Amino acid sequence: MSQVKIGILGIGNMGKGHTKYLMNGEVKGGVLSAICDIDRTKLEWVKENYGDKIQLFDSVESFFASKAFDVVLIATPHYDHPTLAIEAFQHGYHVLVEKPAGVYTKQVREMNEAAAKSDKLFGIMYNQRTNPLYQKLKDLISSGELGEIKRTNWIITNWYRSQSYYDSGGWRATWAGEGGGVLINQDPHQLDLWQWTTGLMPKRVRAFCQFGKWRNIEVEDDVTAYVEYENGATGVFITTTGEAPGTNRYEVSGDRGKITIENGKMTFHRLRVPESQFNREFKGGFGQPECWVSDIPVGTSEGSQHLGITQNFVNAILKGDKLLAPGEEGIKGLTISNAIHLSTWTDNWVNLPIDEDLYYSKLQEQIKNSTAQKDVKQINMDVAGTH
Amino acid sequence: MSQVKIGILGIGNMGKGHTKYLMNGEVKGGVLSAICDIDRTKLEWVKENYGDKIQLFDSVESFFASKAFDVVLIATPHYDHPTLAIEAFQHGYHVLVEKPAGVYTKQVREMNEAAAKSDKLFGIMYNQRTNPLYQKLKDLISSGELGEIKRTNWIITNWYRSQSYYDSGGWRATWAGEGGGVLINQDPHQLDLWQWTTGLMPKRVRAFCQFGKWRNIEVEDDVTAYVEYENGATGVFITTTGEAPGTNRYEVSGDRGKITIENGKMTFHRLRVPESQFNREFKGGFGQPECWVSDIPVGTSEGSQHLGITQNFVNAILKGDKLLAPGEEGIKGLTISNAIHLSTWTDNWVNLPIDEDLYYSKLQEQIKNSTAQKDVKQINMDVAGTH
Repeated sequence: MSQVKIGILGIGNMGKGHTKYLMNGEVKGGVLSAICDIDRTKLEWVKENYGDKIQLFDSVESFFASKAFDVVLIATPHYDHPTLAIEAFQHGYHVLVEKPAGVYTKQVREMNEAAAKSDKLFGIMYNQRTNPLYQKLKDLISSGELGEIKRTNWIITNWYRSQSYYDSGGWRATWAGEGGGVLINQDPHQLDLWQWTTGLMPKRVRAFCQFGKWRNIEVEDDVTAYVEYENGATGVFITTTGEAPGTNRYEVSGDRGKITIENGKMTFHRLRVPESQFNREFKGGFGQPECWVSDIPVGTSEGSQHLGITQNFVNAILKGDKLLAPGEEGIKGLTISNAIHLSTWTDNWVNLPIDEDLYYSKLQEQIKNSTAQKDVKQINMDVAGTH
Repeated sequence: MSQVKIGILGIGNMGKGHTKYLMNGEVKGGVLSAICDIDRTKLEWVKENYGDKIQLFDSVESFFASKAFDVVLIATPHYDHPTLAIEAFQHGYHVLVEKPAGVYTKQVREMNEAAAKSDKLFGIMYNQRTNPLYQKLKDLISSGELGEIKRTNWIITNWYRSQSYYDSGGWRATWAGEGGGVLINQDPHQLDLWQWTTGLMPKRVRAFCQFGKWRNIEVEDDVTAYVEYENGATGVFITTTGEAPGTNRYEVSGDRGKITIENGKMTFHRLRVPESQFNREFKGGFGQPECWVSDIPVGTSEGSQHLGITQNFVNAILKGDKLLAPGEEGIKGLTISNAIHLSTWTDNWVNLPIDEDLYYSKLQEQIKNSTAQKDVKQINMDVAGTH
């Protein structure tokens, strides 16, 4: 095989983004051969821009039956990710799924099982894993430069969304339409990077969501989560769509100091000797280990992003490259997201792995009790600046 | 009256600090006339350094009976602050008490009642209230520049203390000796400033203390606290003595942007129009209010600190100046501190005002169950650099 044919399923905002770079020939060895959307009006955009260069489908059945591609890139609403991925594996396609992996882990676990049974590749569009900042942090932690982790702290409150944003689509910010708010829509990358960079999943979670606090929506738009890890470290994750300008500051402290990422820069407060060693040897009153403040070089690029994940996936098929974002890992960030909801709903601790049936039933309750009735205005979203 | 005579009760590390600036004549209108400590060996330090310029007492009774001063500056161990303050008021003295106001609010409330019954002045050594950074923050919030507060976030983890520090005094970091760890010893200023700068006290608290996590001590050395305020805002307070180099970053966000204090600098991300107004008027998809990043001038001074509080107290007596840190306000930070302990002990929410009797009984449990047996090494502490 010298070329991988890609079929995009769902041509909303994200699907269009993938279409553009693929049709620009930016993915070496990758070609966009088919697009499917059950909303025919959306296919018009493809015709207008690319004529008949791409095979179009308005039914999922005919799309899957066509064998017009090797890879299905799933860019539909969240709830459909797992079911469509399972179907794609059953038809013998490789699957690259948009984030989030799904809305609830029970469903995503089934997707992972289908992937495991298949001999096809499974990837997830965690494009932020291509960002050199987070790659460097993962490197500094996994190589031991930071030492044993003591604390993680991510303030990610720069997801400002106005009421008009939420009013732009009837499915937006509803339990039935999206299955959550800021956690499921804006934060999947950060929830993934939180565990990916540190290599740590929480042992238990105590979280505090507020629903429709800043906007007239039914899902969470303000979250504070406290977590405890197996190694004794603790963590905090704070997020909202209601603040301007908001903050994006991620700090991890360890036995060798602390690493802070803020404003696109990484600073390593590096201890000359590990804190634990200093503590054993120091015999004075006040005193602390010598600390060197280091700017860590990571460049100014945000990395290859979506294009990079798609290229990596194509390379995995063509050359056996290792996947940067294996699809099976999508369940990790989603587990944290689900645990944060569940802790709020039960007003209690949630141990991991979470009770998936309980989460599913609580989610159904939210959907059943939903009173979302929105005056929908169509707004064309330019997502070029979002992730 | 042209001069205020001050008697210091307790000549440990803090008492010595007060003695030095008073004997240097740095407080205008204030003179140090007497010092009392029940440990005679500590009085030797006074004799060695100041000869017989200061009247010395080795019993509290004779000190209070002497009328050798107008003001009692209480710098004893924490537990004794309220009882000694009450006694001082009964003897007709003005009282300036070191922080914390006490260990549990039940006791501090009695002190406040004694102060209210007295016609004497009551102050607390909240010297950080003299810091221009926090004065400016209080100004920007109370004057409405920041708008309605949405979130507070204080990461104050730069209290590094080694095991040798804790081993330097048998009373240190024990329930019986100090009544707590980082909250009661290192954080009283921040817990006060948190409420003083914002003008907000939590409505309820859910907190997570870890006891003896980093050091061989029985009290808390690692804390994460989540709070909710009456106006709907939330807050997080994170503190520890176990990290190096630690962080001191205080951020408050509001309807007009956010103010961040870190590394002795204040930055105001100021919105051109209030976020709430932008949200009402904006009709697009993505978009947020115009933001101006402003460095707020506060100078590099940390303010007049202990000297400033003592000077202000003397000026209050001599000229009727308003107290910067009225003693009655000591209960506020302590209430938050007690609520954080109590939430951990009960593994549940704590509503404010807290159940003072429950806190007292839980504290007694800790003391009763204490197994603290420390190999005490005497180390001379130089507290010149601490607050």
